[in-house]
Amino acid sequence: MSSSPSPWLYENFEHTGSAFGLRITRKLDEVQSPFQKIEIYESTDWGNVMLIDGAMMVTTRDNFFYHEMMAHAPLFTHPAPKNVVIIGGGDCGTLREVLKHAGVVTAVQCDIDEQVTVMAEKYFPELCESNKDPRATVMFDDGIAYMANAAPESIDVIIVDSTDPVGPAEGLFNRAFYESCLKALRPDGLLVQQSESPLALMHLIQDMRGAMRDAGFKTFRTLPFPQPCYPTGYWSGTIASKTARDLTDFRAADAAAKTFRTTYYNAAIHRAALAMPEFMQAALND
Amino acid sequence: MSSSPSPWLYENFEHTGSAFGLRITRKLDEVQSPFQKIEIYESTDWGNVMLIDGAMMVTTRDNFFYHEMMAHAPLFTHPAPKNVVIIGGGDCGTLREVLKHAGVVTAVQCDIDEQVTVMAEKYFPELCESNKDPRATVMFDDGIAYMANAAPESIDVIIVDSTDPVGPAEGLFNRAFYESCLKALRPDGLLVQQSESPLALMHLIQDMRGAMRDAGFKTFRTLPFPQPCYPTGYWSGTIASKTARDLTDFRAADAAAKTFRTTYYNAAIHRAALAMPEFMQAALND
Repeated sequence: MSSSPSPWLYENFEHTGSAFGLRITRKLDEVQSPFQKIEIYESTDWGNVMLIDGAMMVTTRDNFFYHEMMAHAPLFTHPAPKNVVIIGGGDCGTLREVLKHAGVVTAVQCDIDEQVTVMAEKYFPELCESNKDPRATVMFDDGIAYMANAAPESIDVIIVDSTDPVGPAEGLFNRAFYESCLKALRPDGLLVQQSESPLALMHLIQDMRGAMRDAGFKTFRTLPFPQPCYPTGYWSGTIASKTARDLTDFRAADAAAKTFRTTYYNAAIHRAALAMPEFMQAALND
Repeated sequence: MSSSPSPWLYENFEHTGSAFGLRITRKLDEVQSPFQKIEIYESTDWGNVMLIDGAMMVTTRDNFFYHEMMAHAPLFTHPAPKNVVIIGGGDCGTLREVLKHAGVVTAVQCDIDEQVTVMAEKYFPELCESNKDPRATVMFDDGIAYMANAAPESIDVIIVDSTDPVGPAEGLFNRAFYESCLKALRPDGLLVQQSESPLALMHLIQDMRGAMRDAGFKTFRTLPFPQPCYPTGYWSGTIASKTARDLTDFRAADAAAKTFRTTYYNAAIHRAALAMPEFMQAALND
C-alpha cells in the first residue's frame, strides 16, 4: 500500500445539483472512440468503474440493480419473450441477464460503440460471460438505423439501455425512434427504456411517455429501483406496451420459480417496483 | 448571480468508499455545540442542508423519504400507537410525521443536542411545524438515560432516529440500550431504528439485530428505502417487536385510508418496502 491517501473521483451532475464519488486506487485505461471518451478506474470498494464522457456508467459492485431490473422486469411482464433486442447496452450486462431466460431464442445487442464492449470484456468480464451464447448477436451499429430497418412485428421486447439523452443517445428519446420500435414489435411487444431519476428528472419521464404515446404506445409503467452510482442513487425504467394492457400484471409465478440467480430481482421486488410513491403517482397518474 | 461557479460540497464516506455531494451557493451558519459541530449550507437544487460533524443529516429536498418511512412504517405496523418516543430526531421531521397520526396521544422527542433543533427551527421550519402540538414534548437530554428511566410498559413505539453509531450515538446501538427499550415498551410495543445502507453495511444490520435479540426482542424486519444524501443513496429502518409477531402484517387498510399527506409513503410503498431483495434475504434470512 502506498502511504499517500487514495484520491476521490467525483462526478458532478450539473442538472441535479448533486454529485457521486468513489475512492479510487488507480486509473486502468482510457480510450477515445469515434463517439466518446471511455475511462476505466479501479476503486477501493466498488471494483472497477467505467466512465463515458465523464459520466459513471457501471461499477462492478452496483450494476446488478440496473441490469437485473432492465432485463427481468420487462421479460417477466411479456407473456413469452423469444426475440429480444437491446439498443445500447455495450457493457453486455443486460444481455447476460436476458439470456438467463431459457425461453429467449435470440438476443441482439446493438451498441454504436465497439470500444465500450472491448473495455467491458477486459475490465468487467463477468458482465460479458454470455456474449458467446449461441442465441446472442453482439453487433456495433447505429441503434436508430437498426430499429428503422428491423422487420415489422419481429421482436418481443426492445430494451433501450443507453446513456443519457445527450450526445450519441439523444436520438433514442424521440417519437421517430419510438415509431420504429412500435413497428418492429409484435402485437404483444414491450419497449423498456432507462428513464433516469424519478426524484430529479420527472419531466424527462413525462416527456418520454408523451413521445411514446405520440408514437402509438398504449400503456406505461415506470419502475423505480436503487442505483447508487447514478444521479440521486434512485433510478427507473419505463415499460411501454404496444397494446392496451395492464403492465402491473406480470408472470409472478414464473418469476418466483426462476431457476437462475439474481442479486436484487425477484418476484416480490418486481411487485414492489410497481408500487408508486405518492409523488410519482401525482406526477404520472398511475 | 456571482460570475464565479458554485462550489461543490462533498462528503466522503470512508467506510463505504463512496461520496455524495451537493452544489452549494453559500454557508448559512455554523455552531459548535457541546456535542458536535453543526453546519448549514444553502444548495442550488436541494434547499438547505444540515451537516453534523461533516456528515449530511438532512436536506430540504430529500428528507421526506427517511422521515416518512421511520414514522409511518412502525406506526402503521403497531395495532394502535398512542405513546411514542423518538430518541434523537432533533431536526423534528420524524416528530412531525408521528403527529400526523390522530391516534397518537403523546410524542416525546429526546435529543441530546438542543442546537440541532435550534438550527432546524431556523433553517428547516417546515420540519418543526408540529413542535407546538399539545401532544408533543421536545426535550434535550441523554436518550440512553431517558430510556433507562422510562416507566415500564409505558410506550407503544420507540423510534431511534440517530446519527451513525460513532460519537454521541454510539450507545444507542447496543444491548444495554435495547434492554431499556424492551422494558419501557408495552407488550405489543415496537422499536424502530435507522439501520444504515443495506448495500454497504449489512454487517451493521446483522449486529443490530443480534443485540436486539440478545436484549429480548423477538421478531425483526428491515425496510429499505431511497435516501439520496446518505451513503449509497439506499437506506433502511429496522423494526423489532417485543412479542413474536409477523412484522409484514401492518394496518394496510388504515394506511390506504390515511387522511394526511405524504410525499413518499403510502400503503403500497409500505408493502413494497417489505419485499426483500435477493441479497438481503440471503443475509438476513427474512
